[in-house]
Amino acid sequence: MFDVELPIIQAPMAGGPDTAALAAAVTNAGGMGSLGCAYLAPEQIEAAAAAVRAHTQGPFALNLFVRADAPDDPVAEARVASVLARFRGELGLAAPGPSTSTPRFEEQLEAVLRCAPRVFSFTFGVPAPEQIAAVRAHGIAIVGTATTVEEARALADAGVDAICAQGAEAGGHRGTFLGAFEDGLVGTIALVPQIVRATRLPVIAAGGIMTGQGIRAALSLGATAVQLGTAFLCCPEAGTSAPHRGALATATATTITRAFSGRPARGIRNRMTDAFAATEPAPFPQQQRLTAELRREATRQGRTDLMQLWAGQGAPHVRTLPASELVAVLAREAGLRA
Amino acid sequence: MFDVELPIIQAPMAGGPDTAALAAAVTNAGGMGSLGCAYLAPEQIEAAAAAVRAHTQGPFALNLFVRADAPDDPVAEARVASVLARFRGELGLAAPGPSTSTPRFEEQLEAVLRCAPRVFSFTFGVPAPEQIAAVRAHGIAIVGTATTVEEARALADAGVDAICAQGAEAGGHRGTFLGAFEDGLVGTIALVPQIVRATRLPVIAAGGIMTGQGIRAALSLGATAVQLGTAFLCCPEAGTSAPHRGALATATATTITRAFSGRPARGIRNRMTDAFAATEPAPFPQQQRLTAELRREATRQGRTDLMQLWAGQGAPHVRTLPASELVAVLAREAGLRA
Repeated sequence: MFDVELPIIQAPMAGGPDTAALAAAVTNAGGMGSLGCAYLAPEQIEAAAAAVRAHTQGPFALNLFVRADAPDDPVAEARVASVLARFRGELGLAAPGPSTSTPRFEEQLEAVLRCAPRVFSFTFGVPAPEQIAAVRAHGIAIVGTATTVEEARALADAGVDAICAQGAEAGGHRGTFLGAFEDGLVGTIALVPQIVRATRLPVIAAGGIMTGQGIRAALSLGATAVQLGTAFLCCPEAGTSAPHRGALATATATTITRAFSGRPARGIRNRMTDAFAATEPAPFPQQQRLTAELRREATRQGRTDLMQLWAGQGAPHVRTLPASELVAVLAREAGLRA
Repeated sequence: MFDVELPIIQAPMAGGPDTAALAAAVTNAGGMGSLGCAYLAPEQIEAAAAAVRAHTQGPFALNLFVRADAPDDPVAEARVASVLARFRGELGLAAPGPSTSTPRFEEQLEAVLRCAPRVFSFTFGVPAPEQIAAVRAHGIAIVGTATTVEEARALADAGVDAICAQGAEAGGHRGTFLGAFEDGLVGTIALVPQIVRATRLPVIAAGGIMTGQGIRAALSLGATAVQLGTAFLCCPEAGTSAPHRGALATATATTITRAFSGRPARGIRNRMTDAFAATEPAPFPQQQRLTAELRREATRQGRTDLMQLWAGQGAPHVRTLPASELVAVLAREAGLRA
């Protein structure tokens, strides 16, 4: 699939962990790297794609969040301000500056078209028919993300080339875009065969896969390929911060939280996730912007109690290996190479 | 394992779906049947085991909930009474009669020892050391249920022979007994390899497995055997009610609810689960007794909006086949038989 030797895709992990070096290393090792471009401005997307191409001539994916953001909600901002002010105070941050904005999806997509990666993958929804047509016209393969059979059917109807089936185990943002996000928390072992049967499209299994044995399991379920995020978080090429790496090694339980971005995502529980279990966060991406400086400073200070610590349920199996070596180990464990 | 040809165990499903006929049919087909005895009095347990033995000479498991019940809570009873009164009224039920009691675990365990099944399996906790010793002294193999690595370690320390790793996908009661039940919602594909690595004991994978492909996946993850509940719910030998069978066929989403028993369990969402998402249920097993007559009458009237409809996340793949045929199909699909 996608002219890639191994059915192993490094998941997009917007906001730090995925880097051009990581994506290129995975591609050069025979898998396919991805870059999460959800928070990048159009010119940053083009620079990131160029950085990947500086290290590999092979295929890679650019990933976006399909969004139509609601206007900022001043009531929500006031509600979360007191929680954030307390934590900002602990970190020694002054009062927040003026609000920034998140790049518009339409403009991000235009940048992706100019980059013409092998694959455009997306989550949080379905692009408009003319957007899908434009991607196809640029010769870019299209992968949508589904967390339920209903979403998979919607993606198939829209004409995607493959579906990433995101099991409940997956770290980071939940892709759920139809119905309640709780209904999209279906385990990989249940979700993958249901989407295979419902759509007959190639399915990329994601969620809880950390080893070659996990890859074999996913292929047994009918998946054509697998997508691993957490497994790559401790590679030296990853942009994962040192405190995040340390937290992964000792993670015992993860939780689904809206604390950091306003949308449900899986990560390690801490004071920040507890605080926003008690206080309703602002909507996405408003919460993401309101917490940006706090998250950055907490990371700089190594304050894992306030940091965004995305992690899938497979985190205890994370390995600290160069990406090329990890891909080789995964392929060998899965019996994909001798 | 357990002198069984196929590594396929029919899960205990207390309260109706599992029957002596189902357990015996699975055993006679080369797998191993189970009977959930959690709600049975000692003499009922002995009668149930005898009924299995009337149909098979092969191995089977008896399963109990490990419980030390708190005294009934009159405040909780008052809290749930108004919700239950409304639904009882809809069903034409008169005011509830005097409270009944749930058989004590210690007495149930004595009955299991007298029955001497091949396997004693349990959930909700760890029996006391002298209880474990008594089971072992009777030559009965011991299987405990874990939903986290921490629970698996506790079971291994207690000296079980194997661990049933219950993934978040599983239908019916969650076995979680250490920490918050949310922390025990780990997907099968993530949980099984972690428990295999942490305990080195034989692991029985449960949760979301519906087909031979799912069995292959679980074995790839390091499981020694699999346990399937939902997959057997539509067998003619199962005691599953007709409306429950109908609901399974069209189930799109399940939820975790305490509505029916007071303990978290996965089933199909309906008015009853919604009502007890809004109103805190009584503790287990008080809620189980308070709702018993309502559940029975709702089932009799085919009121799926009020019934207990246990289902795992694999429900859409349920097949209506005689148990012997289903076991044969699973074995063939999994490549366990030619």
